[in-house]
Amino acid sequence: MIRLSLSQAFDLAESILLHNGFDRDHARAVAETVVAGERDGCRSHGLYRVLGCVSTLQRGKVIGDAIPKVIDQAPSIVKVDAGGGFSLLALQAGLPLLVEKARATGIAAMAINHCVHFSALWGEIEQITPFGLVALACNPSHAWVAPAGGSLPVFGTNPIAFGWPRAGKQPFVFDFATSAIARGDIELHRRAGKAIPEGWGVDASGQPSTDPDVVLDLGAMLPFGGHKGSALAAMVELIAGPLIGDLTSAESLVHDAGSKSSPYHGELIIVMDPQRFLGDSAEQHLARAENLFDAIQGQGARLPSQRRYEARERSLIDGVEIDPVLFKDLNALLA
Amino acid sequence: MIRLSLSQAFDLAESILLHNGFDRDHARAVAETVVAGERDGCRSHGLYRVLGCVSTLQRGKVIGDAIPKVIDQAPSIVKVDAGGGFSLLALQAGLPLLVEKARATGIAAMAINHCVHFSALWGEIEQITPFGLVALACNPSHAWVAPAGGSLPVFGTNPIAFGWPRAGKQPFVFDFATSAIARGDIELHRRAGKAIPEGWGVDASGQPSTDPDVVLDLGAMLPFGGHKGSALAAMVELIAGPLIGDLTSAESLVHDAGSKSSPYHGELIIVMDPQRFLGDSAEQHLARAENLFDAIQGQGARLPSQRRYEARERSLIDGVEIDPVLFKDLNALLA
Repeated sequence: MIRLSLSQAFDLAESILLHNGFDRDHARAVAETVVAGERDGCRSHGLYRVLGCVSTLQRGKVIGDAIPKVIDQAPSIVKVDAGGGFSLLALQAGLPLLVEKARATGIAAMAINHCVHFSALWGEIEQITPFGLVALACNPSHAWVAPAGGSLPVFGTNPIAFGWPRAGKQPFVFDFATSAIARGDIELHRRAGKAIPEGWGVDASGQPSTDPDVVLDLGAMLPFGGHKGSALAAMVELIAGPLIGDLTSAESLVHDAGSKSSPYHGELIIVMDPQRFLGDSAEQHLARAENLFDAIQGQGARLPSQRRYEARERSLIDGVEIDPVLFKDLNALLA
Repeated sequence: MIRLSLSQAFDLAESILLHNGFDRDHARAVAETVVAGERDGCRSHGLYRVLGCVSTLQRGKVIGDAIPKVIDQAPSIVKVDAGGGFSLLALQAGLPLLVEKARATGIAAMAINHCVHFSALWGEIEQITPFGLVALACNPSHAWVAPAGGSLPVFGTNPIAFGWPRAGKQPFVFDFATSAIARGDIELHRRAGKAIPEGWGVDASGQPSTDPDVVLDLGAMLPFGGHKGSALAAMVELIAGPLIGDLTSAESLVHDAGSKSSPYHGELIIVMDPQRFLGDSAEQHLARAENLFDAIQGQGARLPSQRRYEARERSLIDGVEIDPVLFKDLNALLA
């Protein structure tokens, strides 16, 4: 394994992105995001994503120098037109107005439109909680997941992420796909020639299948948690699709036209200000939330982000370890 | 079975509630709600709930003539103090201001505080979607559910409900508990002396248990969907508990002090106005949402409320059938 400090990893990612046609702002935002993934032990959103970002640009499926346009849509709604760029700069561009609106009215929403999405939502949530705000975010992806009781893909992996600020502590953050498993995990089984567990997917007739080829190419992935996960996936399609004037996962897949690029769609972020809900008693009530976390951790169960925060602490000291093949593939993009 | 028309069922419920100490407004709201449950084939939220409403009043755990107080908390936040009454009148009292705020700012929240809750959230969602608004609602309950990886109850059954208005059609509505199964279903297995399926609960050491006595009295229920459902249950505790200055499920159970009454807590409802998100293009984008529903139903899968709507159509013509024992128990409350 190749060991890199976090700043070495950042420089490598940024250099590749600049060399391959991204402008300085996008290169920095993407590099920060993939290094944060690597740092937190989320390899699926780590440095290897640089390969996909570059190939998405080469195929003309992302704009490398898009300038996000912030629209003051309503007293509690910010819209940001990402202009076909990655979502990261759009979030950063809209965030100040989103925070201002949430503090003014108590609850506000940000719709990011026309963005290409490859990053995990927890990274976005962690940019909002430091303002003392509660955040909920979701987005469609590509239509790969059948509804409960069906066999044809309709939903994306449609992640839902949530963040709750904690005084003097890392925020409570979760971020999960509403599919039973990430698509990448099924792809890893295919490459390894292994069967997948039952419950991850179905064949073209809707019967359970443990064959990754069948699930990925002929049938469909399944939502987590049966009809409940399926209902949540539908909600994500609606509120981060038509509600914000952007594509559903089915429409995003049509737009992709077989190029296998990152999904092109929108994202909805809802932000709430505890100070406006609670006034002078905010501190007292937020302290009660800590009892909930204590009750979970006190019985030996984990909080959702605990592993990521532990990996982060280690990486800040030790840096990260990169697979030599990945390191070679990345450096080849500097040639 | 005893067959009653919907108006006979309403009159029976209302008479019992009035005779046992509820005032006219609460009696009407509760009667409408339980008849709607019975009408839609949701017996668990049907007429039998009248027994629990009366016993909750007799134990002093609900105020039968509470007058909800609407507070204009912030430009996008309505608070309603239910004053220890059932949630239903509080929702009705706050709804006009909630709708006004959502239309003015694009997104608004309503916090109902100090309410006793026995009703299903879909009934509340269905009062909001006719305004053309999208709604999301949730509430804690009593701490009966262990977090994923744990064995001690922390979460309530914490339902999440969502509604999406559809032009000329019944709204898309879902409403599910974040527990693997309703507590009432486990109680039915206990009464029938039957084992419960694995996945519904654990014993006191956190091991899977199929014994309803063990799960209900010694161990804990489990969330649906493993760590993902557990994360959602925690979110509900936070945003419909401390965020709105109200009790968590653990605190609600302490407040109950063994009386086995309905949970006493708060509820959060978030409402979004598609017109403010989309402006002139709202109609065009909402039409695209219909493609999603077509893709689900077109492959033979169900929409979440489909069974309820089918039962409703039948009940509007045929009325409802009541178990004779329940009918006798209800009539005994008129003596």
